[in-house]
Amino acid sequence: MSRTSLSVALLWLLPAAALAQPAAPVEKWTGKTVLVIGAHADDDAQSHGTLALLQAHGNNVYIVTLTTGNVGTQDPNLSRFQLAEIRRQEELAALAELGIPAEHYINLGYDDGLLEFEDRKAVVGELVRQIRKIRPDVLFAFDPGKRYQRWHKSDHRTAAYLAADAARAAMWRLLFEGQIIQEGLKAYQIPEYLFYDSAEEDRNTWVDISETAEKKVNAASKYVSQFGPGWEHYKGPNLSAEEEREMKERMRARVQKRNGKPVEGFRHYKGLPDSIGK
Amino acid sequence: MSRTSLSVALLWLLPAAALAQPAAPVEKWTGKTVLVIGAHADDDAQSHGTLALLQAHGNNVYIVTLTTGNVGTQDPNLSRFQLAEIRRQEELAALAELGIPAEHYINLGYDDGLLEFEDRKAVVGELVRQIRKIRPDVLFAFDPGKRYQRWHKSDHRTAAYLAADAARAAMWRLLFEGQIIQEGLKAYQIPEYLFYDSAEEDRNTWVDISETAEKKVNAASKYVSQFGPGWEHYKGPNLSAEEEREMKERMRARVQKRNGKPVEGFRHYKGLPDSIGK
Amino acid sequence: MSRTSLSVALLWLLPAAALAQPAAPVEKWTGKTVLVIGAHADDDAQSHGTLALLQAHGNNVYIVTLTTGNVGTQDPNLSRFQLAEIRRQEELAALAELGIPAEHYINLGYDDGLLEFEDRKAVVGELVRQIRKIRPDVLFAFDPGKRYQRWHKSDHRTAAYLAADAARAAMWRLLFEGQIIQEGLKAYQIPEYLFYDSAEEDRNTWVDISETAEKKVNAASKYVSQFGPGWEHYKGPNLSAEEEREMKERMRARVQKRNGKPVEGFRHYKGLPDSIGK
Amino acid sequence: MSRTSLSVALLWLLPAAALAQPAAPVEKWTGKTVLVIGAHADDDAQSHGTLALLQAHGNNVYIVTLTTGNVGTQDPNLSRFQLAEIRRQEELAALAELGIPAEHYINLGYDDGLLEFEDRKAVVGELVRQIRKIRPDVLFAFDPGKRYQRWHKSDHRTAAYLAADAARAAMWRLLFEGQIIQEGLKAYQIPEYLFYDSAEEDRNTWVDISETAEKKVNAASKYVSQFGPGWEHYKGPNLSAEEEREMKERMRARVQKRNGKPVEGFRHYKGLPDSIGK
Amino acid sequence: MSRTSLSVALLWLLPAAALAQPAAPVEKWTGKTVLVIGAHADDDAQSHGTLALLQAHGNNVYIVTLTTGNVGTQDPNLSRFQLAEIRRQEELAALAELGIPAEHYINLGYDDGLLEFEDRKAVVGELVRQIRKIRPDVLFAFDPGKRYQRWHKSDHRTAAYLAADAARAAMWRLLFEGQIIQEGLKAYQIPEYLFYDSAEEDRNTWVDISETAEKKVNAASKYVSQFGPGWEHYKGPNLSAEEEREMKERMRARVQKRNGKPVEGFRHYKGLPDSIGK
Amino acid sequence: MSRTSLSVALLWLLPAAALAQPAAPVEKWTGKTVLVIGAHADDDAQSHGTLALLQAHGNNVYIVTLTTGNVGTQDPNLSRFQLAEIRRQEELAALAELGIPAEHYINLGYDDGLLEFEDRKAVVGELVRQIRKIRPDVLFAFDPGKRYQRWHKSDHRTAAYLAADAARAAMWRLLFEGQIIQEGLKAYQIPEYLFYDSAEEDRNTWVDISETAEKKVNAASKYVSQFGPGWEHYKGPNLSAEEEREMKERMRARVQKRNGKPVEGFRHYKGLPDSIGK
Repeated sequence: MSRTSLSVALLWLLPAAALAQPAAPVEKWTGKTVLVIGAHADDDAQSHGTLALLQAHGNNVYIVTLTTGNVGTQDPNLSRFQLAEIRRQEELAALAELGIPAEHYINLGYDDGLLEFEDRKAVVGELVRQIRKIRPDVLFAFDPGKRYQRWHKSDHRTAAYLAADAARAAMWRLLFEGQIIQEGLKAYQIPEYLFYDSAEEDRNTWVDISETAEKKVNAASKYVSQFGPGWEHYKGPNLSAEEEREMKERMRARVQKRNGKPVEGFRHYKGLPDSIGK
Repeated sequence: MSRTSLSVALLWLLPAAALAQPAAPVEKWTGKTVLVIGAHADDDAQSHGTLALLQAHGNNVYIVTLTTGNVGTQDPNLSRFQLAEIRRQEELAALAELGIPAEHYINLGYDDGLLEFEDRKAVVGELVRQIRKIRPDVLFAFDPGKRYQRWHKSDHRTAAYLAADAARAAMWRLLFEGQIIQEGLKAYQIPEYLFYDSAEEDRNTWVDISETAEKKVNAASKYVSQFGPGWEHYKGPNLSAEEEREMKERMRARVQKRNGKPVEGFRHYKGLPDSIGK
Repeated sequence: MSRTSLSVALLWLLPAAALAQPAAPVEKWTGKTVLVIGAHADDDAQSHGTLALLQAHGNNVYIVTLTTGNVGTQDPNLSRFQLAEIRRQEELAALAELGIPAEHYINLGYDDGLLEFEDRKAVVGELVRQIRKIRPDVLFAFDPGKRYQRWHKSDHRTAAYLAADAARAAMWRLLFEGQIIQEGLKAYQIPEYLFYDSAEEDRNTWVDISETAEKKVNAASKYVSQFGPGWEHYKGPNLSAEEEREMKERMRARVQKRNGKPVEGFRHYKGLPDSIGK
Repeated sequence: MSRTSLSVALLWLLPAAALAQPAAPVEKWTGKTVLVIGAHADDDAQSHGTLALLQAHGNNVYIVTLTTGNVGTQDPNLSRFQLAEIRRQEELAALAELGIPAEHYINLGYDDGLLEFEDRKAVVGELVRQIRKIRPDVLFAFDPGKRYQRWHKSDHRTAAYLAADAARAAMWRLLFEGQIIQEGLKAYQIPEYLFYDSAEEDRNTWVDISETAEKKVNAASKYVSQFGPGWEHYKGPNLSAEEEREMKERMRARVQKRNGKPVEGFRHYKGLPDSIGK
Repeated sequence: MSRTSLSVALLWLLPAAALAQPAAPVEKWTGKTVLVIGAHADDDAQSHGTLALLQAHGNNVYIVTLTTGNVGTQDPNLSRFQLAEIRRQEELAALAELGIPAEHYINLGYDDGLLEFEDRKAVVGELVRQIRKIRPDVLFAFDPGKRYQRWHKSDHRTAAYLAADAARAAMWRLLFEGQIIQEGLKAYQIPEYLFYDSAEEDRNTWVDISETAEKKVNAASKYVSQFGPGWEHYKGPNLSAEEEREMKERMRARVQKRNGKPVEGFRHYKGLPDSIGK
Repeated sequence: MSRTSLSVALLWLLPAAALAQPAAPVEKWTGKTVLVIGAHADDDAQSHGTLALLQAHGNNVYIVTLTTGNVGTQDPNLSRFQLAEIRRQEELAALAELGIPAEHYINLGYDDGLLEFEDRKAVVGELVRQIRKIRPDVLFAFDPGKRYQRWHKSDHRTAAYLAADAARAAMWRLLFEGQIIQEGLKAYQIPEYLFYDSAEEDRNTWVDISETAEKKVNAASKYVSQFGPGWEHYKGPNLSAEEEREMKERMRARVQKRNGKPVEGFRHYKGLPDSIGK
């Protein structure tokens, strides 16, 4: 019996391991497969500096988005269908700025704002399928953390828990075994996690994004229907020079600083999915 | 593009705004429409001093109660049907003490103690309908806060989250749009919130109810089947003089004091529904 | 109207009573009926020292386990069916070490890892039935507490909330009344609780298990497929002398100490189910 | 004990009563309240001749439509929202031709093509509410009959069964009793039924619509987005004179004839809802 | 490979075997275990002559009723709780007339009129448990037959399909296997069926109940709240001599005759559950 | 406006078109894409002669199977996992005999015998996805026909209705539109249907399978765990020469004959999905 797997079993009874920085700084990572799970096109925007940096350093970044984002607008002329098309186009434009290939973007097509009403088993099963296909070394997900105790936008709350539930289920060969038998997938245990949208006090890892901060600003400025003038009146993806300058300025102003450097903060966790929340 | 709506979009990425007292003290409010969402007849009782005060000052108070309260009794002779009738009569009697018209009381008719098992989409849809009809300036709701992390009476937990979910959904024209197209309702964004049953440390607003404390006591003493002798043996709404005196005394003793004045404490929040929990 | 029942009603409006140690120390309890609700065979293992002690002191301990534990293994040759059989055998062997009779073990037969997807009303109803049958003086359950705010293994999270929901529902004669009318059961209110797997800072009761620590070690060493070499390669319930020695040693090392004595820590609560989470 | 109500009880054990024509011919009915339940705007079109006739003869016709009809189009430029608006406008225009007031049209707002996936209890409850409010002497509904054994457009199949289920539930004071206690409604038993879209061999009643056949044609020609050129390319409610002429001609050609007279055929049933299907 | 089991497999592809009378007439059966599944107390009344005869001839009859019958009354003073109690008492009184022991009556406690809204998997699982415990040689169930195509009282429709679904599921060791592993039950295949409430043209077996017709009448006259004066105004189980005489007379008049003899008609089926409907 | 599409709209009100043989005999079809939807590996076996013939004549045959078939065995030593693996291997071996490529076999991985308990919207959505990807000219599906009125093995009943529901939903651009926007699929209307397992009297098309009858026999003899000695005791896919000879003989004896020729019978339907059941 190997030490490794026994320690897995032992962890079930042990107190949670202390939270710690990743072994190697995120800025040095290379050769890793990275999966981001979010609820809406733009949920990954909080991590765009880090994702651009990882992609540039020889890692492979994939984005799985649960909903089409087809509800959140103040433009009275947009339909759900149009909004979903716009949100997809904006996401792909943002990913292009970050150097992430379009085919790494997977949208599961659920309706915005209604994710919590979908059948949980079906959604978890689909996330398990993606995890078993992509087999990420690192999962980026909403932190199922502090503010959820009170209330958090229902899609985010749902995405946080479903991602964690799926990370756990994916590791067991006897769960969603139809995928294993019929599709040739294998059970897979994600070893490492970077949770975004964490409570300030839970963040234990800040990634220095000096190298990619401008890519982050450029990507953010593609979400014209969410952060730009398209929020109230969508006129297409292209802005006037003035509008674009103003929008980028606002996006730039929002980048978090730490010790004078642009950063993105995460709760890092390494270990069994069972203890994600500890 | 107006500043107002852009700030809406911007808020999505910003850290939560600091919690603050309302711009004008609640005691000075006038001309507002106020909606209270609770799970049971008597959940509004925690706010009766404030509600009486608001109604008296030219505001319009509406109560939406999710369940009929048809389960919670120790009287072995009462049926669900009878208990629901008693609870309705008691609620109307209490509201009469507060000066709130009977037609402002809307009970959605779900069974007590079983709310969590109802179809969430259907219940949220019904709450969205009420919000879009009443269009409140202020929502009173259970604080989906601290104790829910551990456990809270399941109807209260459910009512807390459903009210927040509904506040969020109501603002989007593309959610529950059947109501908009078929019933002539319009999407509506509730701007301000007073959460009741909050954890002590989260309360940021105390309303001085000196003016209405006695109304609060009188109203509370109408819940004979819950706080009075009807809990174990219900004999009708009328108490003997002695029973009534004793019950009012107990109710009076429970009014919270702060700096010698009777108060009711809330967590006040103003802003987008998306950030209710921050 | 009796004082007792009125105080029940009054509690609904009062701030939570301070958490306190049990009136008599757990080590002195006798003549009580004790019910443990867990999600998997082995969830009761955290409390085995206390349970052995209670059983030896003239109390009656019952275990209700929600799932069959038929998923959690790294042995590629085990099926769900076989794993469920192994987990049952291991649980009975562990209980035998503790002196708890086999017929006090009730497994509700749900699938491991999928509990959250079962119909909540049906599962709560079944737990209510068990509570009304066994009529425990004390309930041991997962603490629906701190870490659940973030994320916790979904079966544990579900078991924690369902146990609390069932404790509450069981007390009302008008809920799941089919059990009362058809099966001759009566509504029942559990008066006292010991929550296990609580956050360190929430524990208020440590039971001195000096008397039964070795029984606890012996019982734990029966879970060969979970904590022993069977985790990766199951060869049957019997270990070699060397394997058994090593496994017991590891189990012994995990027993918590306090002031030099072996202990098990709990959050103790006495009062209405409505306030379990306070 | 009255004969009437006993016969109600007796019917439970008796073989189904023979199907029979209504006591008075439908053409002579007056003073009745009539409720039509359908799945889509236009499902009532099959009965428009009869409904126009009834409304003209001093009866009151109400239409309850379950879905907004927001899916069925071949025009690639229409959104769900726009289609729902068009379908509502077309329905109101058709009802105006028939002399049925706009406020008698109640649309419950469910999504087209997805009715079967809604929570059945919630939909039945809402239909029960409408039945108890309107208290019809006669219900027009899809015949839950022959073709459903094989397959029938899922919304129609669902509407057929839900209408029958609701007719049954509405009569019991102890079902959906929240409506009775909270909204002042009373249990109500619909005494008579005319089922439309029945299998040919099940029709037992043909209404002579000579008097209103042209109104039926005019009403049908209002459904421009369903039966007219708007099906492929919607340009608004108004047709060119040529288009209108052609559309009316087609609609006129579809009116069923019997003995040279324009008719509409139904399965008539009178009796307890329990025996609707016999 | 035995012939028997292969023929089981072969049957899957073969056309339905011709419907036939039982090998031995029902009147000669002895030593059999018989299970009746119904939706309400009194659904078994259609078969009371046969059941009394079987019980008298050395067979063992068990009744599993899904709902408590707590809704169907026209007495405005009865509650659900009271009605359920009355229905249970009436059923036991009827069974006593038939010679069937009280402990052979198992009521699953679901609410009357709402069975279709319960979780189907949970209800089927519970029926499978009863089938595996009782292991009947013959199942009496609602015929999931002709009139269900159109519409049939929703509880009856549901009971018909759930009984057939459960008969099928019970035979597979890998379905609801928790019952097998945890409760010591074994998979069980019911070999023979008598369906009641069949369409006239589907009945292929008439049981001569000359021997027990009077017991049937006596049993039916116990359902005072359903077939007697208690339907409108319940005054307790005892009738005046005049009321009892009249009620029995009505019950006697309803007994079906065939060739001058009192009979009960069934659709008999023997074979795999998969082909129940053929 | 084209005649074609208008006739689509018109069909909604017209009586069902007469059932008719396909324009060209199935034996002459070429260049078509064919999709078979079934519940279990082997449900396609009823049509193997026709499918082999179609594949050989230059058509492309795809099989979508809903469940893994992981329950139906009498071998007490097989687990769900093993049985699913066996059933997959047998299906691929059978398809190889028919000349259908392994990659044309798509198994959706649901559990055998439990399909009805899955979320219907999720399953229909997945079938719609397959239909929109494969874009079949002809759909083979269980006939949602006659015997379903009574009862039919629940997976078959479910598969029959879900296939018809999915055929209908697939044609609308505004249903499951996430697939269209995110995955580049397009709405698709299946024009032609061959229903298998129809009632004898509903079959209107017999395909002469003289050319492929022996392939059908060979393919059927691959289902060793269903139709062969593996039903009771599975020893692997290979049979002894004697076992194989006997099994093929049995399979050969089951091929239906008509005018001395081996045939497979279907209900053929051409037209809108809305009218599949007419």
